[in-house]
Amino acid sequence: MNFEYSKTTLDWINKVQGFVEEHVAPVEEDMHSFTEDPDNRWKVPPQLEALKRRAREAGLWNLFLPPEYGAFSPGLSNLEYAPLAEIMGRCEVRSEVFNCSAPDTGNMEVLAKYGTPEQQDQWLKPLLAGEIRSSFLMTEPAVASSDATNIECSITREGDEYLIQGHKWWSTGVLHPRNKLLIVMGKTNPDAERHRQQSMILVPTDAAGVEVVRPLEVFGSVHSPGGHGEVQLNNVRVPAENLILGEGRGFEIAQGRLGPGRIHHCMRLIGAAQFALELMCRRVDARVAFGRKLSAQGSVRADIARSRCEIDQARLLTLAAADAIDRVGAKGAMDLIAMIKIVVPRMCQEVVDRAIQMHGGLGVSSDVPLTRLFAYARFVRLADGPDEVHLSQLGKRTIQQYL
Amino acid sequence: MNFEYSKTTLDWINKVQGFVEEHVAPVEEDMHSFTEDPDNRWKVPPQLEALKRRAREAGLWNLFLPPEYGAFSPGLSNLEYAPLAEIMGRCEVRSEVFNCSAPDTGNMEVLAKYGTPEQQDQWLKPLLAGEIRSSFLMTEPAVASSDATNIECSITREGDEYLIQGHKWWSTGVLHPRNKLLIVMGKTNPDAERHRQQSMILVPTDAAGVEVVRPLEVFGSVHSPGGHGEVQLNNVRVPAENLILGEGRGFEIAQGRLGPGRIHHCMRLIGAAQFALELMCRRVDARVAFGRKLSAQGSVRADIARSRCEIDQARLLTLAAADAIDRVGAKGAMDLIAMIKIVVPRMCQEVVDRAIQMHGGLGVSSDVPLTRLFAYARFVRLADGPDEVHLSQLGKRTIQQYL
Amino acid sequence: MNFEYSKTTLDWINKVQGFVEEHVAPVEEDMHSFTEDPDNRWKVPPQLEALKRRAREAGLWNLFLPPEYGAFSPGLSNLEYAPLAEIMGRCEVRSEVFNCSAPDTGNMEVLAKYGTPEQQDQWLKPLLAGEIRSSFLMTEPAVASSDATNIECSITREGDEYLIQGHKWWSTGVLHPRNKLLIVMGKTNPDAERHRQQSMILVPTDAAGVEVVRPLEVFGSVHSPGGHGEVQLNNVRVPAENLILGEGRGFEIAQGRLGPGRIHHCMRLIGAAQFALELMCRRVDARVAFGRKLSAQGSVRADIARSRCEIDQARLLTLAAADAIDRVGAKGAMDLIAMIKIVVPRMCQEVVDRAIQMHGGLGVSSDVPLTRLFAYARFVRLADGPDEVHLSQLGKRTIQQYL
Amino acid sequence: MNFEYSKTTLDWINKVQGFVEEHVAPVEEDMHSFTEDPDNRWKVPPQLEALKRRAREAGLWNLFLPPEYGAFSPGLSNLEYAPLAEIMGRCEVRSEVFNCSAPDTGNMEVLAKYGTPEQQDQWLKPLLAGEIRSSFLMTEPAVASSDATNIECSITREGDEYLIQGHKWWSTGVLHPRNKLLIVMGKTNPDAERHRQQSMILVPTDAAGVEVVRPLEVFGSVHSPGGHGEVQLNNVRVPAENLILGEGRGFEIAQGRLGPGRIHHCMRLIGAAQFALELMCRRVDARVAFGRKLSAQGSVRADIARSRCEIDQARLLTLAAADAIDRVGAKGAMDLIAMIKIVVPRMCQEVVDRAIQMHGGLGVSSDVPLTRLFAYARFVRLADGPDEVHLSQLGKRTIQQYL
Repeated sequence: MNFEYSKTTLDWINKVQGFVEEHVAPVEEDMHSFTEDPDNRWKVPPQLEALKRRAREAGLWNLFLPPEYGAFSPGLSNLEYAPLAEIMGRCEVRSEVFNCSAPDTGNMEVLAKYGTPEQQDQWLKPLLAGEIRSSFLMTEPAVASSDATNIECSITREGDEYLIQGHKWWSTGVLHPRNKLLIVMGKTNPDAERHRQQSMILVPTDAAGVEVVRPLEVFGSVHSPGGHGEVQLNNVRVPAENLILGEGRGFEIAQGRLGPGRIHHCMRLIGAAQFALELMCRRVDARVAFGRKLSAQGSVRADIARSRCEIDQARLLTLAAADAIDRVGAKGAMDLIAMIKIVVPRMCQEVVDRAIQMHGGLGVSSDVPLTRLFAYARFVRLADGPDEVHLSQLGKRTIQQYL
Repeated sequence: MNFEYSKTTLDWINKVQGFVEEHVAPVEEDMHSFTEDPDNRWKVPPQLEALKRRAREAGLWNLFLPPEYGAFSPGLSNLEYAPLAEIMGRCEVRSEVFNCSAPDTGNMEVLAKYGTPEQQDQWLKPLLAGEIRSSFLMTEPAVASSDATNIECSITREGDEYLIQGHKWWSTGVLHPRNKLLIVMGKTNPDAERHRQQSMILVPTDAAGVEVVRPLEVFGSVHSPGGHGEVQLNNVRVPAENLILGEGRGFEIAQGRLGPGRIHHCMRLIGAAQFALELMCRRVDARVAFGRKLSAQGSVRADIARSRCEIDQARLLTLAAADAIDRVGAKGAMDLIAMIKIVVPRMCQEVVDRAIQMHGGLGVSSDVPLTRLFAYARFVRLADGPDEVHLSQLGKRTIQQYL
Repeated sequence: MNFEYSKTTLDWINKVQGFVEEHVAPVEEDMHSFTEDPDNRWKVPPQLEALKRRAREAGLWNLFLPPEYGAFSPGLSNLEYAPLAEIMGRCEVRSEVFNCSAPDTGNMEVLAKYGTPEQQDQWLKPLLAGEIRSSFLMTEPAVASSDATNIECSITREGDEYLIQGHKWWSTGVLHPRNKLLIVMGKTNPDAERHRQQSMILVPTDAAGVEVVRPLEVFGSVHSPGGHGEVQLNNVRVPAENLILGEGRGFEIAQGRLGPGRIHHCMRLIGAAQFALELMCRRVDARVAFGRKLSAQGSVRADIARSRCEIDQARLLTLAAADAIDRVGAKGAMDLIAMIKIVVPRMCQEVVDRAIQMHGGLGVSSDVPLTRLFAYARFVRLADGPDEVHLSQLGKRTIQQYL
Repeated sequence: MNFEYSKTTLDWINKVQGFVEEHVAPVEEDMHSFTEDPDNRWKVPPQLEALKRRAREAGLWNLFLPPEYGAFSPGLSNLEYAPLAEIMGRCEVRSEVFNCSAPDTGNMEVLAKYGTPEQQDQWLKPLLAGEIRSSFLMTEPAVASSDATNIECSITREGDEYLIQGHKWWSTGVLHPRNKLLIVMGKTNPDAERHRQQSMILVPTDAAGVEVVRPLEVFGSVHSPGGHGEVQLNNVRVPAENLILGEGRGFEIAQGRLGPGRIHHCMRLIGAAQFALELMCRRVDARVAFGRKLSAQGSVRADIARSRCEIDQARLLTLAAADAIDRVGAKGAMDLIAMIKIVVPRMCQEVVDRAIQMHGGLGVSSDVPLTRLFAYARFVRLADGPDEVHLSQLGKRTIQQYL
């Protein structure tokens, strides 16, 4: 047991931090303003491609991709990548610079792990190169999608093709101008055993019948340029070989996909919370009320101390989960993965809320990034199933441990 | 002691509720969409004026204005008006229909209570008629404005005029196309005793030197058509008779202004929370996860029960505060007014947060009004001083009670 | 609607408060020490009977008993009695002085409402006179008794008698030296409809087969002189006429019994919380740490302010529940009664916990009454069903309101 | 970074766990009942000495003592000892079996680190041998002792002696029949710089003028056989060589003493919380209410899941603090030590409170150990300074990090 980052990890932290400070931080507010401007909807900020090229040249590329997938990445473990995701969590444009954006990361992992050589050639290679983006279509407006057995999208074999009918939403990234690939979760066998009904299939974004109905807003922002789309899949037809892994394997793929993805989300949220903590520390030292600096007031100090305690505990738990995935795989680390999903988004929401409070009116304005960080945390509390689902399932498994 | 609404109050509730259902509710989502469309910034939704006229004809006009100010209103007490404000809290366009929007309400009270006949002729009459809007300029970006002694805006007598220099923000309503009046809080006597330094003065919105620098965003929305402005007051000159009540009376006016205003805010927030509760009740009965309706799940029921307990307690407290203002005035009701400021916005934020959670992804989208209600509650936690100021002052006074 | 105590209520408050200050307060710590001394177990403190006599002579007797039960009490409504229970909640010996102790209060109400003239002659009269005490045997160690349908105690008709077999615990008051009567809840008809299986029956404490196995401890105290007993009912036989109201009416009687009892418990807890608040206010003004009085420290003030907000909200809610029982009966007030059961014990526990914290080591010692108040609040969170049961049922009913 | 216990640590866990299961667990409830019986006050349970002898023979002795203090212990690091303390935390009699009881552990560390050879011969040797017990006299009833500069006990040089005058309380262990040594904190130089006024001095328990006024109760228990005493030091005289380290070094000694002691307390509390979690898991699977096992109910599962998340986070944080002390010393680990003091007792209190709730009436009784665990957690929230002091100081240092 050892609670310090390894030499290798510290080196990566320094490299990524240095790159961010030198190249990204100076332009990230501009990039953010660009994407928030209604006139630039679904356009990529002009600085992005040069940053990506530079990051790739510096070897800071596909950092999330574990070593078992060969030469496309530096081959970091989840534990080594985690603090890099924390750095990226401080501003939402950072992940893409290093080709580490959701949902591409999960999609790349799925393709690397389960894709046929043809699927990998066609989709994985350009994704790894950062040339295209992708989306993951799981959630449906009509049902509680946290229970995968509710999914209604149908994937029906007809000759050499699959016919896809479905209505999806919260399809993150689907509006991105370079989005070329949808990974769609649906049911091939609605009569099979509960967890063998689902399959995943590759659908080109420009396939006939794919209709992006509208972008969805999250706390008033459409999250350009990728957005979150409501998507109709109307009689979409794709070749049978687009199915991933085989009929009835969708739930299994989804489970494997979730583990590292949650580490990424949670470490980014820890970065966001840490950023909020720093902002509040600076703020309270700069304001005077009722004759004393805010930083001298007991309830302010207490909230800052609490925030630090919560962030540090959440970070340790997330790193422990990353370590467990590295050692025993996502299935063996299931409980820890559930725990970080329960703990981290809620923690980040609370810490950012305190930071907003300490900033007064400034805190809810767009002059500081706090409402953006807040919306991100609030959103992740709902993504991949609301807290309540994970609390219930973790509670059930915990009880069983002691029987 | 009696916990039921009086016959009179129930009649008013029925009238306002009936008017809202018949005339406002059918168009309020359209009005809201209009105001949120970037193309309509600072434009009033087209339905508004007709609704105002109709409300005025129905005698549902200036409902907030207490009886002591004569014939301009039905003369409801704070306790009688409170449940009407609750009805208005469910959608932000409602208050204006009844000419009960902040900050006009507070401004009208100030003018009715302290204004000279000339001031009342020029400003109060068109405000009471709903012909113009107004703004209240107190908060400043450079200082913690919850401590009124920090205020830096200067109001200097020069001959027959006052010269005003200041930098304000969170000036609600200042961008409204009909905004004609600013009530400005500043210092006339920076060397006087702490609470005698401040004065309030009337400034026409179109006075030379008044510059609305930009609108501020609250969780990504500019709150058109009134907005919240950052305002520079550069060598603004107004006649000396524009001063309200006299030099050094600003703090005193501000104190009196706050009591009823907090009742209004808090009752609207209680309406917002009640609306969120209703939305979650309907939602959880309509969704199935893991084989059971959400409404059958223990943690869902518990959160709904908690929300109801919190809302009902907060409503009783706010009504008790309203009753106290009616009986003993804002000064005598000071502790209760502080208590509702502490309790209600936080309660509303929590209840709406639970409602968001029960709606899944839908909850953070613009398809339901939850993020708007959330932002309103979050904003009010900061308006008129953050929770922490009120906790500290109420704590201090409570300790003194027992010494 | 009116938030001030009536003239009548204020008069009663003054009478009870005056009596307590003159006669009870001077001896209550001695009485408490007497009861906590292991050498005095199950003995009544020597001061008690004189105090009871004096209270009875002053007309401060059976204050809890509503007017519909005739001449045995002053005939106060629940709303009028509530603030008197608050006064009694500050020290546990007070209730008995006024013959207002649980579970006698509930038992007297049951006998007054449902008892035959013979039952009333034999049991109600001496209870109303304060000559005997009684106990209520509902909870069973083997089952979750918050669900009354779980109860296993059997009450079987055999000729002119009922035969009772059961194992009960948390039988409050059963160890009291004057305890003469047990009201036992059991099943007469285990095959009937869920809520028609139960009956209540009167059992003399000295009946053959009644065995008080042992006293139970609550946070280390046996609560002498009444205690909480574990009781075996081994082939206990009583005359058939001891049944209350009729076979299958037990659940119905229990429901009616609970409403006023919860008002009493909750108002006593509000008194306890208010007492804790006063203690902390005095304490923090008397201690200095790190160069400032505790009372000048922001987090201390905030906790005191929060406590006051919570107490005042809880009091309003409980008074509203009392008023509702008076107006529409316990059944019609069911939701409010559930709400106070959920809110008040938890609130009192929190407030007392803060008071303990502000007292440092003194707070957990027996030099101040805080751990006693804490244990009372903690106990009531479990009595009559844990919070969770009420949250679930209230949640269910709240959802149904909106469907 | 590595989140698994080392092979060595696992071996120690197995040894201690095995010893506890074989020798201690079978008798620990008897030992506990013995100590709680008023007839056995200040008597050691008869099984204890044999258990100590056996543990010593098994090499499971002085496990807390770090390697730098030579041959008296196996020389475990704080990180290695931590999980052993967790095992001991499940029942309060365990620590003494392994000679790892507070406050002896801290006193032994102080003597080992700062004692002269003579002091070590006289006091450290019998403490390490488990032949005597000791006490630490710091807290005073008259002042907020969390601020060491408040301490009023005087230690005055008079010739070859020191004269000690003081009034202490919460002197843990002082009533133990084998208590032979008091380490007293007082002021030798009230006019020196704030943190150079204090000194520590060794006082034989039987010195003239040492008067144990009375035992204090914690939630109704006197914690026999060690107890917590109120102690008068009336003109106590000891030889000058009894001073530890030198005049004015008391604060410095206290600081060094606190680090490992907090690890011990916190790991024991984590053991207590883990035990409560296990008890609640078993309980909820064994009870049925409203037709379903408690273990199938959503709010029960959620509370269990939350408890597990909180325990695991707190354990990681405490282990990280232990590791930091091992690597950089208590001073370098100051922030982490403050964090566990803030987090762990509160967490344990919450988890045990939930366990009480899930046990119904059983939970507050003495049939399960929950109220004992609760009282321990509640007590530690106040020991070594209340949470608020640590929140304030940690908050201050955190703010300074970012300036």
